[in-house]
Order: sequence, then C-alpha cells, then structure tokens
Amino acid sequence: MSTQPQDERLDMRWDGWGDPARAHGLPGGVKLLLGAVLGRVPKAPPGPDLADVRISTPPLPDPDLAALAGVVGAEHVRTGHDVRLLHAGGKSTPDLLRRRQTEQAAPGAVVLPGTDDEVAAVLAVAGERGLAVVPFGGGTAVTGGLEPDAGPHRGVVSLDLRRLSGLIAFDDVDQEATFGAGTTAPAAEAVLGERGFELGHFPQSFEFATLGGFAALRSSGQSSAGHGRFDAMVTGLRVVTPTGTLDLGRAPGSAAGPDLVRWFLGSEGTFGVITRVRVRVHPVPEARLFDAWTFGGFAAGADGLRRVAQLGTGPTVIRLSDEAETAVSLAQVGSIGRALTKGCSAVVVHEGPADLAAARRAATSRVLQEAGGVPAAPRLAAAWDHGRFKAPYLRDALLAHGVFCETLETATTWSNLRALKASVTSALTQGFDGADARHRILCHVSHVYPTGASLYFTVIAGLGPEPLDAWLRIKARTNDAIMAAGGMITHHHGVGTDHAPWLEQEIGPAGVRMLRAVRAELDPAGIMNPGALLAPARVR
Amino acid sequence: MSTQPQDERLDMRWDGWGDPARAHGLPGGVKLLLGAVLGRVPKAPPGPDLADVRISTPPLPDPDLAALAGVVGAEHVRTGHDVRLLHAGGKSTPDLLRRRQTEQAAPGAVVLPGTDDEVAAVLAVAGERGLAVVPFGGGTAVTGGLEPDAGPHRGVVSLDLRRLSGLIAFDDVDQEATFGAGTTAPAAEAVLGERGFELGHFPQSFEFATLGGFAALRSSGQSSAGHGRFDAMVTGLRVVTPTGTLDLGRAPGSAAGPDLVRWFLGSEGTFGVITRVRVRVHPVPEARLFDAWTFGGFAAGADGLRRVAQLGTGPTVIRLSDEAETAVSLAQVGSIGRALTKGCSAVVVHEGPADLAAARRAATSRVLQEAGGVPAAPRLAAAWDHGRFKAPYLRDALLAHGVFCETLETATTWSNLRALKASVTSALTQGFDGADARHRILCHVSHVYPTGASLYFTVIAGLGPEPLDAWLRIKARTNDAIMAAGGMITHHHGVGTDHAPWLEQEIGPAGVRMLRAVRAELDPAGIMNPGALLAPARVR
Repeated sequence: MSTQPQDERLDMRWDGWGDPARAHGLPGGVKLLLGAVLGRVPKAPPGPDLADVRISTPPLPDPDLAALAGVVGAEHVRTGHDVRLLHAGGKSTPDLLRRRQTEQAAPGAVVLPGTDDEVAAVLAVAGERGLAVVPFGGGTAVTGGLEPDAGPHRGVVSLDLRRLSGLIAFDDVDQEATFGAGTTAPAAEAVLGERGFELGHFPQSFEFATLGGFAALRSSGQSSAGHGRFDAMVTGLRVVTPTGTLDLGRAPGSAAGPDLVRWFLGSEGTFGVITRVRVRVHPVPEARLFDAWTFGGFAAGADGLRRVAQLGTGPTVIRLSDEAETAVSLAQVGSIGRALTKGCSAVVVHEGPADLAAARRAATSRVLQEAGGVPAAPRLAAAWDHGRFKAPYLRDALLAHGVFCETLETATTWSNLRALKASVTSALTQGFDGADARHRILCHVSHVYPTGASLYFTVIAGLGPEPLDAWLRIKARTNDAIMAAGGMITHHHGVGTDHAPWLEQEIGPAGVRMLRAVRAELDPAGIMNPGALLAPARVR
Repeated sequence: MSTQPQDERLDMRWDGWGDPARAHGLPGGVKLLLGAVLGRVPKAPPGPDLADVRISTPPLPDPDLAALAGVVGAEHVRTGHDVRLLHAGGKSTPDLLRRRQTEQAAPGAVVLPGTDDEVAAVLAVAGERGLAVVPFGGGTAVTGGLEPDAGPHRGVVSLDLRRLSGLIAFDDVDQEATFGAGTTAPAAEAVLGERGFELGHFPQSFEFATLGGFAALRSSGQSSAGHGRFDAMVTGLRVVTPTGTLDLGRAPGSAAGPDLVRWFLGSEGTFGVITRVRVRVHPVPEARLFDAWTFGGFAAGADGLRRVAQLGTGPTVIRLSDEAETAVSLAQVGSIGRALTKGCSAVVVHEGPADLAAARRAATSRVLQEAGGVPAAPRLAAAWDHGRFKAPYLRDALLAHGVFCETLETATTWSNLRALKASVTSALTQGFDGADARHRILCHVSHVYPTGASLYFTVIAGLGPEPLDAWLRIKARTNDAIMAAGGMITHHHGVGTDHAPWLEQEIGPAGVRMLRAVRAELDPAGIMNPGALLAPARVR
C-alpha cells in the first residue's frame, strides 16, 4: 500500500468557505429573523475580484525558487497570483474580511512536497536560505495559524501537504490506519468505509480539513463525546523537523517517559511538519440512534449533560443549545413561534452494536429525564445531522449581506460553566454595545467531559461596513474575560496568531519556556510557522 | 480544606516489600510446586542486619544540612543510618538483592518538606550547593528511579514527600479531587470513600504507592481497562521545578498548544517535583460483577480480549493468564491437577449502575464466547481479587528461600502480541539456560487497548546464591529482544535507571533531545534525579 498523491484537490473559495458551487444567498427565513434581531443592516460592498488584489509581499526570488524546485520539481513550486492568495490565510471571519482588502499579504511561494524526504529537504533549503515555512493542510484554520508571517526571515514558503495524502497502512486486527497528513477527512472516511470502518471525527471543518491539521491543532469534533477528541484517536505520528525526523507511537500503552506524541499534538507547525498520522478506527456502527430533548433552561440541560458524561454511557454526540440558539435554530428549520422555541434543545446520538447502543441510550435517557429533560421530536436531531456542515456557508452569506458573524469557544469545569458563560456573554454584549451594534449571542455546549464541558458561542451583529477592527477589540476583551473567569483560551480552534497573546496566561511563563525550549532544540533557526502559537502579540 | 501532614507514615521493610508484620514464609503448596519446577534450590544466606550495613556514601556535610534545616526545620532533615537505608532504592528484585550487600550506597540526607514553597526552597538550596535531588514517594519504584545517584553533584538529597499528603480540594459536581503528591493510594481511597467516591487505581504497588509517584511514572493499574491508566485520570498538576512552579490543567478540554500535563507524566522527577495531583474520581459503583473464563489457548484468549477492547463494553478489569501462569495460579489456590489447569484463565470485572453493568457484561460475555471462551467458576475471579496485592510478599519469601523471582512488562499491537511474547520468552529462556538455571516463565495480558495490549511476565528461577549479575545480563538481552520485536521498553514500570539505556531505541535521538531540552530549561544545573530516565548507561 502506498501514498496516493492527490495533487489537484478542490480548492475552497479564495475569499470564503467551501466549495464555490455550494455558496448561496441568505434564505428568506433568515432575512426575516435578521430584520427582527438586528434591524436594517446595509448590505456589504463586494470585495475585490481575485485578479484585482494587490499582493504586498513579493514572490520569492528566483534563486530560492530554483533551490526549492531542485527538491520537489519546478511544477510543485508555485508563485501564481491566485495560488498565493489561496494560501494567504485561513477561514475565520477576520480572515475573510482581510480577503476583502485591496492589498493583502501572501506567501512568497507555495511548495507541494511529494514525500517525507522532500519535506525534510524543503526545510533544509528554507533553513539555509532564511525562509519561514508555514505548513498548510486543508486551509480551514480559524485562529490565524496560516498567516504568511516571515518573522525574522526573508520570506514565507507555504508548505501545502496535499500530495502527502492517502492511506499508507491499514490493519483490521489492530483497527489502526496510517494516512498521509494531507489526507482530507472525507477522503479518509471514504477509504475506511470501503473496508467497513470509520474514523468518526466530524468537526465543522470536516469537508475540507486534513488529518495532519486535526493533529497539529488538537481538533475536537461533533462525535468527540463518544470517540474522543482527535488527540485520543492518534496512536502515532511521523514528524519531520529541521533537525531530524521522529516516528512516535511505537504501540499503545508505553510508560517510557512522557508521551511524545502528545508533545506534537497542538504544536501547530512550530516544531516541525506532521507528515503521517496513525489513528485508531472502528467498525461502522450497526446502529445509530438519534434523540432530541428539550430542557426548561440552560442550567437544567447542562446538569443533564453532566450526569450523562459522568455516568459514562458514551453517547457519540451530546450537545445542548442555550435559549437564544434554540430559538434561532428552530427558526432555521421553520418552527418560528411554535411552543418549542422556549427552553433549550439538546441532541443526543448513540452508536454501536444495536443492543448495547439501546442499553446505553436507555440509561442516558433516564438520566436526562431525571434532570428535567423532555423528549422532543426526533426530526430536530435529524435536522441537526443534515445541516451540520452548512453553517460556514450561511456565515458567508451573512457577511455578504453586511451581517457580522463569527464563532468562539472555550471550556471549563461543570461547576464554573454558567459563570463562564455569563462572563463571556457580558464581555461580548459590552463590546457590541460599545460599538453601538445590535447583536445576538448564541451558545451551545459542544463537548462534554466527566469534569467539565466546552461552550461554543456564535455571534451575529450589525457591525457596519468596516467590522474588522471593532471585532478584534471585542474579541480581545472577551479573551480577557475568558481568562479572568477560569476558561480556556481555546477549546478546539487552536492558538494560532489570534490567541497567542493569551497563551502565557493559560500555561504560565514556565509552560511557555518549555514550548520555546523544544522549539529551539528542533528548529534552532525558528523557521517553522513563526507567526503562530509562540509568537509575540501581533500589531495589525 | 487543607493538607493533612502525615509525617510518620508506616515505612516498608528496609530490605523487602511491604508491612513488616505481613511478611511470611513460603506456603507449603508453593514449596511442593517449586520442587517440581526448579528441583532443589539451596536456601539463600540471610542478608545483613540493618545496623551492620556499611553505607559507602557519607552523610551530607553540616553546612548542607544547616541550609536544608533552614528551609524545612532541623527535625525534617534526617541523616540516621536507618532512614538513609530506607531511602536507598526501590523494591525491584535487584534492589532487594542490593539490600543484601554489606556495603550500600544511600542518600546523604532525607529531607521532608511540608509545603510546596519548602520544596522550591529545598531545590534552590540544592542548586546553590551542588546537590542532586531524588523525589521519593512511596518508595515502590521497580526500575531504579530511586537510586541515590549524585551524577556530577556533591551528594544526594532524598526528597521524601510524605508530608505533602492529604486531600486539598474536592468537588462532587465536577467529580475532581486534588491531593498532595505524597498521599498514598489507600489514604486517597479512604478519604474519597467517606464521600461516596473512588479513584479506582489499583496497581500491584497500591498499598504503599503515592499519587505523585503514579503521575511521575505513568502508572497502570488492574482497573485501567475501565478507568484508564493513571495518565487518563490526571486533570491537573502542580510541579515545582528549579526555575519556577507550574499549575497545569486549568480545566478539561483545552487546545491551547500541547497538553503540558502530559509533558510531566512520565518525567520521573527529572524535570521537577510533582507536589499536587488533581484527579477525576467517580462514585463508588453500585454493582461489581466478577466473571472467570477459560480459553483453550493463549491465542484464542487474546483474540477474545481484543474483541472486547474494540467493542468498547468497558470492563473495569480484563486480564488473561497464559497456560503456564494459569497452571501456577490455580496451584496457588489449591487446584493442582484439576481439569482447569489446562488452558488459559481470564478474569473480567464489570462495574457501574446495575442495569448498565449487566448490559455491558452480557455484551462482553457474548464476544468472549464467540472467541471460544467457556465460563469458569466465579471463585477464580474472587480468588484473584482477594490475593491481588499479596504477590510481592510471596516474591520476598521466594527470595529468602533462594528462588529468584522478578517481573517485567511490555506492550505491543494485537497483531504483534504473540510474536512479542515468543521473543521475550525465548530471550528469557536462553538467558536462564545460559546461566544453567532451571526456571519457569509465566505471562499474562494485564492491560488492553483498542489497538493492542500489554504482556506481564513473571519469572522464577534457581539462579543460585548470587543471582544479581546473572539476572542483569538476562534482563539486558531480554530488553534487546523486546526492542527488536517491536515492543515497549516498559508498559507501566517506568524507565528509571534500569531501562534508560533502551529509551533512545524507543523514542529516537530527536525524542531524547526533546526531553533533554525541557530538562535543561527547567533544571539547568541538572540536579533533578540525575540517575533516571535520561541517564547514560550505568556501570554497576
């Protein structure tokens, strides 16, 4: 079995999410709702055409390009206007707002290595020639980790890993699969599905993200309650660093010093390039049981989720929308004004062998009922399942209509959950009020653990035609509030450039020193993604 | 709630395992069996009395002692002959054989800090004065991690953490508890039990080991199939290093860079001193369902365990003895010669709410039957439960009778399990044959994962009156065989001094460089446990 290069994968829209063919306008129901919530919002002026953007950073000079071409072949070193802008950033709302500017920064070249050895050789060339390297997987990053930031170096190479994709090894006895890091999640599921297996990692970015990206950013997915976050799926990594290659994760269950696989999960391309990911997989489940629940309020719902997480019945999915999100979600599926728009809705999915899934579901249901939950129409769970990868397209449609829309996430212990939610909501509200922007703040519990849970916020606001600076100020005060209230600076979006100024508050100065020490050891020249994770605060 | 100092905890025997009052001679049945297996073995000459041992390393000079006393008080700086020998090593069989020598190395002083700040101050004094510091928890280490090795320094401080013990914080909503690192496992279970909770970590060392030791060495316990190894229980750590204190694990589910808690789990006291451990706990289970199974052979049994681990029915305990161990274990419970001494026996325990535990047990049983398992008398499982902490006492009784007895462990993927078992067995056999020693090699699968399992070997042999050098040669060739066959150098005993020469084979040179870089950052003088984990090969 060998790596199947996928050179010409579908690129996402250069200035928005996803498949260009699936972009859409605002549904009528959403327009109606927006009018009620935000009042009249002037439609945003269109951004520039791709061809009209001026790139502020020059392409790499010819000697650099020749040296890189000597490693990967000239056809895999790309400096075209379009390809550079396609690698200019990720897909956060600030990223998309920057794509509307007439002048933009972009990497000096996009390089597509075809083997792990080529990755090592590219890093060597970059080190010798003073170039920064930004690993690029699916391009779905939302915290600035793909910024073409050269740091102290002469220029930036975007290292696009799409050719390092495909199934490398599969073992149905061990239920493990090794993929090239550039393999997209749908491609991995397709090849596993042919064998009767699945990985079962479904973040919002599922349709475009890569396994290497999941590992580098400690991704969580919608099924992480059952299958564990991506951290827990990874059994081995190959990492190519500027000073050597590591093959980690010999087999499960070592106690031979600290687990070095976990040192690279979350390293966000600053220690080296993850080129192969070994993951545990599981048979496609026999049964998939969807349930929807309604709770009188967020506190009761959160209490129910806590009890389930601590009982350990293992639902694959369990999530709870707060009152505001419940109302809007139901509006989206056409239920405005019906009785169910009161309260908080939850979605629960159990999977596995039919009898065991049924027993676990019964135990979950009993606990949720004890917490005050009432069974709701199963179509609500089915609607969530059907629509779950569509939100980014809706976000783009909102942006095009002048409505600012963005998400942020954090996590804390169960006992601190409501206080953290109130702090974040308050910081956001004060921020939007200060910007004189009508807004709506939605929240759901997206992931549960025995000891705590995550909070995922979606904000929509009428921030006006130039929302970027206002949002960055609001986000900064919200991050301060998260840290003050005992939350995490990120639960699964990662640190990137955007959250780097808050990292030290979370892990302490000695923690930052540990990360810098490993980076200095593996990458003494500091060429690996210098803008991310450990970067100083960025002045935009 | 505040730390409850436990200054005068029961010490283990200085030259053997456990409570001196519980030491015993060889049971008659075992004597009978030994005769059949090993022939006549001359009884070992008794070791020296504690008072007669000559300590080869001097106590620390007075200025050092005065500086340490200035931090912790003179009553907590101890240099008595007995207390130094009580801290001279761990409890592996080689450790105990060294306790039989007339001249022994021991730390220059034993220091008992009473607060985290005192730990920091002791490290500062040690750094200034050129002293190595060896953290000492329960003293149960079995891979040489407590060796009083000064490295390049003038002397060794054994940092006994028993005063940093007791419950510091408890939250029944979050189901989390914070303990001083010197808290023993039984003390933790007692205080949790009063609140209706348990930790559920039961390694062989349970009765004497500490939570800090579990964390520092990535312990696995007999219930780890269900509750996860200790790694998975830890939600937070306080670590005092020579250059700063870290409070890690703000709350569950962060993606803010790599998980630094996991950087300290397995660091074996070489990065700093773990002083507090936050763990998730769970309610004392309503039901505890014991089952015993018999398989025709090891391959069928391992296949059954694999299917259960991959199905995810979550037995708390699941273990499988090979044919040799099954025969001996049954001998110990008085069943020699009965039909069941053929084949391989397995013990399975399910816990939890009664109905859910029953459903999970039913699914497990179905899978084990499909794999060829036959239900066996439940008294076999009960006997395992009853006797599970007694093995080290038996080991000591064997040693006193001149019978060499030791254990070692490794792990690999399911598909490689039998090949690894054969390689280890072959290396041990060749080693003992080369030493002209009759022997018996027993093995069980002690821990299961979806992708693989551990192998735990017990060896007994007639190695003669001076078995240490012969065993170290046999162990070295066995370690080589483990690495060649794709196993781990350790599954849960740790690296310590004994396995350090093999660490680089497991994690590679770049992996070792990462560990050294963090150590150099946190402990630039290299005072923390210089003999362990990253030490060069030791010449004894």
